[in-house]
Amino acid sequence: MGTAEPAHPEEVARLGGSPDSLAARLAALAEIGADPGGGLTRLAYTEPERAAHALVAGWMRRAGLAVYEDAVGNLFGRWLAPGADPEAPPVWAGSHLDTVSHGGRFDGAAGVVAALSAVERLSASRARLARPVEVVAFVGEEGSRFPGLLGSRAVALGLTQADLEARDADGIPLRDALSAWGFDPARAGEAHRPPGSVSAYLELHIEQGPVLERAGFAVGLVTGIAGPLELEGEVVGRADHAGTTPMDERRDSLLAVAELALCAERLARESSPQTVATVGRVDVSPGAANVVPGRALFTLDLRDVDLARRDRVEARLRQAFSEILVRRGLEGSFRQLLRVDPVPVPESTRALLGRAARRAGVAYLELPSGAAHDAMLMARLCPAGMIFVRSLGGRSHAPDEETREGDLLAGTEVLFEALRELAGDAELPPG
Amino acid sequence: MGTAEPAHPEEVARLGGSPDSLAARLAALAEIGADPGGGLTRLAYTEPERAAHALVAGWMRRAGLAVYEDAVGNLFGRWLAPGADPEAPPVWAGSHLDTVSHGGRFDGAAGVVAALSAVERLSASRARLARPVEVVAFVGEEGSRFPGLLGSRAVALGLTQADLEARDADGIPLRDALSAWGFDPARAGEAHRPPGSVSAYLELHIEQGPVLERAGFAVGLVTGIAGPLELEGEVVGRADHAGTTPMDERRDSLLAVAELALCAERLARESSPQTVATVGRVDVSPGAANVVPGRALFTLDLRDVDLARRDRVEARLRQAFSEILVRRGLEGSFRQLLRVDPVPVPESTRALLGRAARRAGVAYLELPSGAAHDAMLMARLCPAGMIFVRSLGGRSHAPDEETREGDLLAGTEVLFEALRELAGDAELPPG
Repeated sequence: MGTAEPAHPEEVARLGGSPDSLAARLAALAEIGADPGGGLTRLAYTEPERAAHALVAGWMRRAGLAVYEDAVGNLFGRWLAPGADPEAPPVWAGSHLDTVSHGGRFDGAAGVVAALSAVERLSASRARLARPVEVVAFVGEEGSRFPGLLGSRAVALGLTQADLEARDADGIPLRDALSAWGFDPARAGEAHRPPGSVSAYLELHIEQGPVLERAGFAVGLVTGIAGPLELEGEVVGRADHAGTTPMDERRDSLLAVAELALCAERLARESSPQTVATVGRVDVSPGAANVVPGRALFTLDLRDVDLARRDRVEARLRQAFSEILVRRGLEGSFRQLLRVDPVPVPESTRALLGRAARRAGVAYLELPSGAAHDAMLMARLCPAGMIFVRSLGGRSHAPDEETREGDLLAGTEVLFEALRELAGDAELPPG
Repeated sequence: MGTAEPAHPEEVARLGGSPDSLAARLAALAEIGADPGGGLTRLAYTEPERAAHALVAGWMRRAGLAVYEDAVGNLFGRWLAPGADPEAPPVWAGSHLDTVSHGGRFDGAAGVVAALSAVERLSASRARLARPVEVVAFVGEEGSRFPGLLGSRAVALGLTQADLEARDADGIPLRDALSAWGFDPARAGEAHRPPGSVSAYLELHIEQGPVLERAGFAVGLVTGIAGPLELEGEVVGRADHAGTTPMDERRDSLLAVAELALCAERLARESSPQTVATVGRVDVSPGAANVVPGRALFTLDLRDVDLARRDRVEARLRQAFSEILVRRGLEGSFRQLLRVDPVPVPESTRALLGRAARRAGVAYLELPSGAAHDAMLMARLCPAGMIFVRSLGGRSHAPDEETREGDLLAGTEVLFEALRELAGDAELPPG
């Protein structure tokens, strides 16, 4: 990225107040990829994502960080405090700058600007730190163009040939998208970091759900990231005339899906507040008002932060599905689309984040993350923790995504205190 | 139709046995509009329907009937027994010769060939009849090209300007389809018959359902034709992230439809064996595996031969819908697509058909018709009755539609006996 300068210095300046405030930086980022109809679109490896990286790189440089990119375009700003050991594995903090199509201003961007702000405070405080701190903006976290979590996957697991061949909706493979950004796909493997090379990863992110708002907390500490299990179900009955076929003679595929969807809702409610189950798609054929549905396809999405609990609900749902099919004289099956194990946040990291919040004087709620995040893959490499900030109305992945500046400041305060401790601040007060 | 001759005399001849048998005639008709992949397609006002009318017209002439068409193309074959009063309102018997797309050989055609066969027997028996008997083939009974029951509607109610403007999937209005058959759309109203001009209408039809087969009867006498009530429902909730939105925070539109569909099934079962309720179509949006369904559109089809009973189920379903919406915090509404009142077969006609079956020595089951038929509209003009014959596997509107020849002969026997009585056979034995 070398000589890249802030892409929109005028915009930053004209926002008034501190051009380096969280709000001013988020406003400047929100102009990159802004949709005419509201919202913003910065898909993975597109010009808008590149421009957002360039803008943040400029801010990093102005803050005195050493800027570099890895082999897949993840952006890093490194702060080495005077006296810190340059060979020590660094602490990372960050998130991503890409968005879904017509997404909001906070998802991802909030975590990058918060991390930069926290490191600026570390720098200004002239704290005596033992190890480097790096702000990271991962490429392609959202799955809107290519499969998601690309940058963090490249770092934690390394991209596979299959990853590089994944194509977007226009048929462009990731390999070509990397080349378009000036990276050599053959060298993508160099982004992979060895175990022990990063000492910890922290990510601040908007909640994207309603839990904090409902409970009245600005900040949440994440207990674990729910792993999604995604099944596609098929039910085959018989398409009969809706007028001439008595109820007892029917083999109605839709009614089986209806029973299963309600059963999934009940089992998730009974399981725990952290268990969610969703039938998000149903396709019925022939799909005519006067024909009994002969065949139904549907998806079942099941998530929990606790794998054993998710396994129990899955087993009960599969059992219920079998019973429904037998009772209704139907055939049916499940096909697995996705199975990701939940990632618990280590006890030690949760305890560290709790101490940080208490030092910052910020009240917090512990809660799981229902959505996937870069922290999920970073957890394969090092202890990884997450700080959530309140989403108004629980809205996300939409133009009306909104988080108050005060909530963002409170979360950033917790991030700052956590980074101090992780980076080995010699003057840290006792926890 | 004037000089039309049988379209496929060779086919009829090469079938062997009696070229005038029910089976031979159905086989000859099945070659008109035969699909390469099985089944047959003779849509309203197309060349295949026209060819089927021409073939039957030839058979009518050979049987000594006077053939004529009305102003919309309904085909009639009139038998005036020696000594019968030519001015007396005739008895009609028949059905239709069009089919759905990829339909079967029996739906409609069975009733036309059975009526012709019954009149041939009346003629051969040299019965002394008081009034004329006419075999009728109504045009466009199926709703696969234009709205259905066209021919019988033209006769019983008269076609409206709106009927004539109805367009098929290619945008062709019924008006132009009539012209293409050589009829003047401006004179379509002339097909409308005044009250009292027809003394009775009888229709033999395959059951299109499993009831006769299950009960072990070849023949059924119809108690009434169920009226379809068709509603389109909409439920509006909120599209939320399937991972981050706890179960208690959701407003899932699909789960409301699931509850309503199961409620409709239960209410129909509890109401009577003649009540049926079907949710045949569900469209969910956004329809993604990881998004809670924000909006759902669905159809609800409710039928009964008893209007008061259907009204009760409808009221309870509307009440249940409201309760589900309130409990789940959703908005929703119903829009009426179709509301046809059930048509009971008059007691006197049911009694007459019962006497006919007893004279014919044919055991029968009384049952309702769940599907609509031309008899439904003829009931607006005169007493109308229906004879059902067993459908194997209850299959219909499909290539595998099947009815045994013996069952068809038994039904035709009942039709013959009923026509004898309706036409005033002076030598009818006491019932």
